[in-house]
Amino acid sequence: MSSSIPGPIEVTDEVLYANAHPSMAHTSPEFIPVFGDCIRMTRDVLFTKDAQPFIISGSGTLGWDQVAANLVEPNDNVLVLHSGYFGDSFAECLESYGANVTELQASLGHGVSPSQLERALREKQYKMVTLTHVDTSTGVLSDAKALAGVVHDVSPDALVVVDAVCSVASEEIRMDDWGLDVVLTASQKGLGTPPGLSILVASQRALGVFRKRIAPVSSYYVSWKKWLPIMEAYEANRPAYFATPPVNLIYAYNISLKQIVRSPALPLTERFKRHNQASQTVKDALECLGLVQVAQCKEERANGMTAVYFPEGVTAADLLPRMASRGVVIAGGLHKDIKDKYFRIGHMGVTAVDEKRGDIEKIVNSLRDSFADIKAQKNHVKH
Amino acid sequence: MSSSIPGPIEVTDEVLYANAHPSMAHTSPEFIPVFGDCIRMTRDVLFTKDAQPFIISGSGTLGWDQVAANLVEPNDNVLVLHSGYFGDSFAECLESYGANVTELQASLGHGVSPSQLERALREKQYKMVTLTHVDTSTGVLSDAKALAGVVHDVSPDALVVVDAVCSVASEEIRMDDWGLDVVLTASQKGLGTPPGLSILVASQRALGVFRKRIAPVSSYYVSWKKWLPIMEAYEANRPAYFATPPVNLIYAYNISLKQIVRSPALPLTERFKRHNQASQTVKDALECLGLVQVAQCKEERANGMTAVYFPEGVTAADLLPRMASRGVVIAGGLHKDIKDKYFRIGHMGVTAVDEKRGDIEKIVNSLRDSFADIKAQKNHVKH
Repeated sequence: MSSSIPGPIEVTDEVLYANAHPSMAHTSPEFIPVFGDCIRMTRDVLFTKDAQPFIISGSGTLGWDQVAANLVEPNDNVLVLHSGYFGDSFAECLESYGANVTELQASLGHGVSPSQLERALREKQYKMVTLTHVDTSTGVLSDAKALAGVVHDVSPDALVVVDAVCSVASEEIRMDDWGLDVVLTASQKGLGTPPGLSILVASQRALGVFRKRIAPVSSYYVSWKKWLPIMEAYEANRPAYFATPPVNLIYAYNISLKQIVRSPALPLTERFKRHNQASQTVKDALECLGLVQVAQCKEERANGMTAVYFPEGVTAADLLPRMASRGVVIAGGLHKDIKDKYFRIGHMGVTAVDEKRGDIEKIVNSLRDSFADIKAQKNHVKH
Repeated sequence: MSSSIPGPIEVTDEVLYANAHPSMAHTSPEFIPVFGDCIRMTRDVLFTKDAQPFIISGSGTLGWDQVAANLVEPNDNVLVLHSGYFGDSFAECLESYGANVTELQASLGHGVSPSQLERALREKQYKMVTLTHVDTSTGVLSDAKALAGVVHDVSPDALVVVDAVCSVASEEIRMDDWGLDVVLTASQKGLGTPPGLSILVASQRALGVFRKRIAPVSSYYVSWKKWLPIMEAYEANRPAYFATPPVNLIYAYNISLKQIVRSPALPLTERFKRHNQASQTVKDALECLGLVQVAQCKEERANGMTAVYFPEGVTAADLLPRMASRGVVIAGGLHKDIKDKYFRIGHMGVTAVDEKRGDIEKIVNSLRDSFADIKAQKNHVKH
């Protein structure tokens, strides 16, 4: 059985093995450089020289709280770009911390366009603009580079925050070149590690805004005042304590990062190409089956996952068990407006890049066979 | 090499193996009952019938934020009992969320006494009283039952919150009988699982206070509004989504819980006795070596760890490497007032209960040999 959902994704055996590392003190000389290397390699994944990674025990959702608690002060104006389900939740999180949120909604199946963003920025001053790079509920890929460019042009002081939970390591993200201030993600998607790490990278500009804040940070666990000295210490090969790090997950993340950024056989740019090819194969097969993707435009389709409508008369109860019986676990819908009308397939990490596994072939064949099966059964019932 | 620090502790092979479980969807029919069982068995560890467990991706520290964000409203009076380092931090966390904190300090090496608590409660009204059951920095065990009794007698409306990070499953805690409202802990100590789970159990009375709060919860990730439906769904064998749970850690926790509460060969009450015996063996050996414990009174000494002063002229640099060369990792000091003057030994979980491992014997022998070694070297230098 293989997990072809948009996370937790399949991970390599080496990563699983590292996750079973015998107990190790978080302050031990063996563990400290492992954590330090994770911090350094996380920068490499995002092509950044000096941004600051925070690697903290928590779900991806915790990244939103990190942004809201550290970079937002009560009544700050924040513009949240919606391309699916996750914009709503990020907005709710920001409001919990006192932000004054304006939501800029794309129509279902699209991302917010640069011109739409430009209009919004000309109407009001914002301290921060957030966007979902790949919305896991719709499979819509937003053009982070172009959107960040618009923010820099029109509202140069505004911070650009990218929710990249479903895109880091499966989509190219050039943090420094594109001028992104925060990129936040989690371990269980493109980064190929079991779930349990909130991974956030903040630009020096974002840290500057944090340092100049007037209102105290209204949280304890996610306060960068606590975490910055810890990250700096581990990177400088010294132990430090604020909260016990998830030692095993960090061993696992370390191995996965090495496979992602230090593999001579598969450089990072090649990894993105492989994701694109795998994605294309899945999407072509779905098109052949006559299915329509939730993401309407080709250039707005994620490379690590696909969200696609059921054909008329077919439901999740028809498809998901048939796929599972063929050894492929896929996911149902998540976006509240169309929850029962579509399904989702993940093709990130090893599933996309390790051709020997044959995961993509298996996904495609299982889709064909399952739909043939459904069709035969429906015809049988009709007659 | 074995980890004899007060967490992350050594875990069983079965637990490590479960932590390497292949990727599994958090919504899959295989995983849902595993999570549901974790919720049920967590209750069993604390002898509670109807309190509500929250099992969330995060470090133990996150439990403080759960308490502060959900049960405290701005300007609520909270009394924090100190028996070491962790009271200070809990107080800081509560203040971050707007609490008006009064600290009740025990002298170093002691817990707050019931009469000291009674005086404080007669002076002022508090919404909540917090205590550290075992302070990991001093090894002081507070009498949670007696202290909770005083709160119920003098200030019956006040919630009793127990930071039990370093005591759950190594010290007896009877949540219902003692009337505790919150017991919070983490996975990597007595619960014998790798670090990365914040585990908190709230009484129905605490949930009632939460439901009646007026100020909105000023956090997102730790909001019980989000988590309560998730915990209820998994316990009822239905999937639900707020944030991706740390699937592998939950598989590991499930196995460890089974070993703790469903082992006919070692019932929970027997587990506590074994911790007491192991602790006694270590403490007796230290006494034989002429060493003085940080926790001054016998009845205030934790059963899962020991904090002990170095003899005159000996430092961590003398002892810790000598212990490590004998395969035993112990920890240095943590309490700021005496940081360099003492060391700490953990003896929780398998180390305490699985005699076949010989961990306790190894700790004791290594201590004897290391101190003999240090003495010989110091004498050599003297002559």
